[in-house]
Amino acid sequence: MEDLRNRQQSGDFTPVCTTELGTIAAYADEFAQRGTKLLGLSCDDIQSHYQWIKDIEAYSGHKVTYPIIADPKREIIHQLNMVDPDEKDSQGNTVPSRALHIVGPDKRIKLSFLYPASTGRNMDEVVRVLESLQMAAKYKVATPANWKPGDPVVISPSVSNEQAKEMFPQGFKTVHLPSNKDYLRFTTL
Amino acid sequence: MEDLRNRQQSGDFTPVCTTELGTIAAYADEFAQRGTKLLGLSCDDIQSHYQWIKDIEAYSGHKVTYPIIADPKREIIHQLNMVDPDEKDSQGNTVPSRALHIVGPDKRIKLSFLYPASTGRNMDEVVRVLESLQMAAKYKVATPANWKPGDPVVISPSVSNEQAKEMFPQGFKTVHLPSNKDYLRFTTL
Repeated sequence: MEDLRNRQQSGDFTPVCTTELGTIAAYADEFAQRGTKLLGLSCDDIQSHYQWIKDIEAYSGHKVTYPIIADPKREIIHQLNMVDPDEKDSQGNTVPSRALHIVGPDKRIKLSFLYPASTGRNMDEVVRVLESLQMAAKYKVATPANWKPGDPVVISPSVSNEQAKEMFPQGFKTVHLPSNKDYLRFTTL
Repeated sequence: MEDLRNRQQSGDFTPVCTTELGTIAAYADEFAQRGTKLLGLSCDDIQSHYQWIKDIEAYSGHKVTYPIIADPKREIIHQLNMVDPDEKDSQGNTVPSRALHIVGPDKRIKLSFLYPASTGRNMDEVVRVLESLQMAAKYKVATPANWKPGDPVVISPSVSNEQAKEMFPQGFKTVHLPSNKDYLRFTTL
């Protein structure tokens, strides 16, 4: 998943977005190591972005090395159906919904966080799900609730037990369940 | 936020959903302490749910004390516009999108996680954002990126410095930024 993008919408000079974009800047190496490009977007103009980036860098102590798209005419957010249904800016104009999307090499959204302006995201969770998505794209596995890298993963239901024996020579463990269905099979990668 | 609901869509007898619903059962006290009701939904029928709940409980070691709605006729998912645009079940029928929504006392969605079937959610992150939402609903504050309970919070831009002095007698710290705008003000609750 070389071309995975992490897209974030935000508003310039707003407190939570400033901490989020600063924290993303601090995690830039984590994303680069995972072949992930970062991209921001807001409906502020480029001059505003230049000024705001100085604030983000002063707050976080990290350079903003990723682009932040300026969409003051709301062209992109309308084209991509990213307009927030409720929120408006102080002039009553539409704003993008505060989403963080992870986009795959096929240009489709794989996973989204829709958090309100009150709630800054957790970059460790973003990195965690990125690891999960990349592992699921490479092997026929999925990651259970509360999974962390290194923990056992579950084998996809599309893989038969016979195929699983070939695909996972390290072995796998089928959880015995009251239904006697064998859909919960763990392995370690 | 007494009436906050945590709604989860899933499919019976699928591995990641089983681990998620089991983990939610294990966190039932965490949600109850925060006045949050849990609610599951899938398009499987009630008989299927009864069988599946036995699997969830056997896997997690916790009783499933929250309801799981059966919507085999797809009435609710169509009414609530929750139909997954891409996924179908093995019979080619529509399925609900795999969303976890946090719903406020006003019955509106406050926050959503849209994770694919490959990626189980992180219940610690769900509890973290619930704390953030409840704090933001009670005080005029928001939580910065990577915030954990106990960390400083930011004061909402709608609060003037004069109001902030009254509302937060414990004091607050304004971050000096290159823009000389004073929108980044931290306090501890």
